Amino acid sequence: MKETGRVEAFSDGVFAIAITLLVLDLKVPTQPPLLAGLLAQWPVYAAYLISFAFILIMWVNHHWMLGHIVRVDGMFMLLNGLLLLGITVVPFPTNVVAQYVLTPDQNVATAVYTGWFLMIALFFNLLWRYAARGGRLLSKDDHEAGLARVVSARYRWGGPAYLAAFVLSFIWVPAALALSFLLAVFYALPHEMTLPGETASVRPAHPA
Amino acid sequence: MKETGRVEAFSDGVFAIAITLLVLDLKVPTQPPLLAGLLAQWPVYAAYLISFAFILIMWVNHHWMLGHIVRVDGMFMLLNGLLLLGITVVPFPTNVVAQYVLTPDQNVATAVYTGWFLMIALFFNLLWRYAARGGRLLSKDDHEAGLARVVSARYRWGGPAYLAAFVLSFIWVPAALALSFLLAVFYALPHEMTLPGETASVRPAHPA
Amino acid sequence: MKETGRVEAFSDGVFAIAITLLVLDLKVPTQPPLLAGLLAQWPVYAAYLISFAFILIMWVNHHWMLGHIVRVDGMFMLLNGLLLLGITVVPFPTNVVAQYVLTPDQNVATAVYTGWFLMIALFFNLLWRYAARGGRLLSKDDHEAGLARVVSARYRWGGPAYLAAFVLSFIWVPAALALSFLLAVFYALPHEMTLPGETASVRPAHPA
Amino acid sequence: MKETGRVEAFSDGVFAIAITLLVLDLKVPTQPPLLAGLLAQWPVYAAYLISFAFILIMWVNHHWMLGHIVRVDGMFMLLNGLLLLGITVVPFPTNVVAQYVLTPDQNVATAVYTGWFLMIALFFNLLWRYAARGGRLLSKDDHEAGLARVVSARYRWGGPAYLAAFVLSFIWVPAALALSFLLAVFYALPHEMTLPGETASVRPAHPA
Repeated sequence: MKETGRVEAFSDGVFAIAITLLVLDLKVPTQPPLLAGLLAQWPVYAAYLISFAFILIMWVNHHWMLGHIVRVDGMFMLLNGLLLLGITVVPFPTNVVAQYVLTPDQNVATAVYTGWFLMIALFFNLLWRYAARGGRLLSKDDHEAGLARVVSARYRWGGPAYLAAFVLSFIWVPAALALSFLLAVFYALPHEMTLPGETASVRPAHPA
Repeated sequence: MKETGRVEAFSDGVFAIAITLLVLDLKVPTQPPLLAGLLAQWPVYAAYLISFAFILIMWVNHHWMLGHIVRVDGMFMLLNGLLLLGITVVPFPTNVVAQYVLTPDQNVATAVYTGWFLMIALFFNLLWRYAARGGRLLSKDDHEAGLARVVSARYRWGGPAYLAAFVLSFIWVPAALALSFLLAVFYALPHEMTLPGETASVRPAHPA
Repeated sequence: MKETGRVEAFSDGVFAIAITLLVLDLKVPTQPPLLAGLLAQWPVYAAYLISFAFILIMWVNHHWMLGHIVRVDGMFMLLNGLLLLGITVVPFPTNVVAQYVLTPDQNVATAVYTGWFLMIALFFNLLWRYAARGGRLLSKDDHEAGLARVVSARYRWGGPAYLAAFVLSFIWVPAALALSFLLAVFYALPHEMTLPGETASVRPAHPA
Repeated sequence: MKETGRVEAFSDGVFAIAITLLVLDLKVPTQPPLLAGLLAQWPVYAAYLISFAFILIMWVNHHWMLGHIVRVDGMFMLLNGLLLLGITVVPFPTNVVAQYVLTPDQNVATAVYTGWFLMIALFFNLLWRYAARGGRLLSKDDHEAGLARVVSARYRWGGPAYLAAFVLSFIWVPAALALSFLLAVFYALPHEMTLPGETASVRPAHPA
């Protein structure tokens, strides 16, 4: 327990810093008029929004995952390190897509962006599958309740969906970006998932 | 409880990083003489001060709010994410107003700045109202003591006040900035508020 | 207790971020040869070292102070906010002195730097005196043991010492910088201080 | 215990921020075509990877060390501060090597990079030896079990290995960088180490 607490605190720190550093991609226009300059960089804001939602959702899911893990080992630390590597880099492809999405290089830029999300989704799945295989790092109760199967099914579509966004990047950039955003919103709703026999993690509000 | 602890720790991290990143807007003058260069960028310091006070006060109030919330759900997470999005962006409009407040674009720059504060105030009210409606996420005691009504009344004026600052931005820039600063100072005093029958959260000092 | 824990965690975050952001002042030389370029910017390294030591020591003392405070109130929050404002700004005067210490503006640059340290020292004393006056925010035991008197005596010299560094900035820059560094080293040894009748906070090592 | 908890939390914050700030070294190419520009800066990515692994591993080992320390004193705080100074600076030599590794200054750049790792390894050994000598800051059990001897033996090779990388920097740059990376990977596996009679810190997974 204590061991997972440490990993969790460090990972939380990295997520919180990475999500806040995104603001450094927002540059003040150097040429007046200001309003036109601000409006002209709408791709920067769109990329900011997508990346913010992506990191936030990854944090929610990472936190949820660690809440079900009761021990860690060296391989878990390594795979978690890979995931954190992925997260810390996010401001870079965000900046790439923001600066090139309105240029002839827009396909490459979007592919770098969605490709990086795909990579992170793979790291995340790798981490979860390692922890859950045979109940390796789960509590006995969670393992017997079939948690791994239910959750793995849920995460199964993350990889292919981001792969689709990656492929779309070469065909139709707006669709690739829209899909990336929708995926973040979809994964933003992790609490719908309850196991048979498990009490919901969110208690209903008491009647007013 | 544990669930709110996590959200709180992550949010605290974001607040702490955002407030510290403001310093990146302070640029060393590139032209001597140094003293004149430092003095000439007083709008940067003023914007720093206002934004620092604003984020600090939002943190105090956010912390206070989470201290009264006993459970979280998916919608709360989403609304809290919106608030954090607002906070992480603050260094950007701060930089905008600092660089343009002495140019003909000062009205636009100030409107962007105060408009963003208005947006954050709305996000904050949204979050509180969602949590408090019907006592949804509050403890039974707080709900029955009428906490929601008292607090909501207090936060009610945040929105209109920042709206006033936003409107003033188009009319008289110094007044808009002064109002923004005064609002931060006003909200800096959250402990005056006690419910009838509630013990004050700050115990009196013991006699010397 | 809980209340001070929150303030402490937030303050710790701000200290940790500010001390790490100092690295952004270290710029890679743009002109070869690299070695000459790196050596030429030795004032940057010196300023880095002094500021790093200063923030670290302020953190140690801040932490120590909060360890003796058992409650907080609104005024304490405000004064603590002032101190944090001082700390977050440190990378800016550090950058000023690094870039101007070898130019004719060296006196102004050093005065800005040491003057900011003086300001922070004053904020720190203000915070401590507010907390300690009449034992306001201290535990009963600490108050009766005369903690406030002993500690206040220790901090009493912080203000005048940094004032001396500030004045020296206009006369002899190297002495002003050396004094700033020595002050950080001096305050780095906070554990020598024990009250009569208090057990030392650092237990002796057990015999080998 | 409480005392080490504080040092640990602050140190963790510094590690998490330093590892995340590395991303600021990744700059978006300013000249199209984008793909060629991104590929051309592969040294930046390589340096990022090595530094990320280095900081991550230092964090793991630092955390492990503090888990075995039961008290801190002023000298420990000072030596820990030196280690943190080393860690916060890492983004700077990383940037140096990334920008100069393909230029005639590659030997100097790599020597600065590996030399800084050597310095940090020395700081780390200094910290551990201070804490472990005569069991000074260890628990009685750990001391009697001979923990210091086993661990010191393990860390003994860190210094000479980074010294080898430093010397190699002047002879064959690729080998120096490869060795730096391999060292990070080697130190990434800290859990293999168990004392005779100590239960392994990682419990085996329960059977599937």
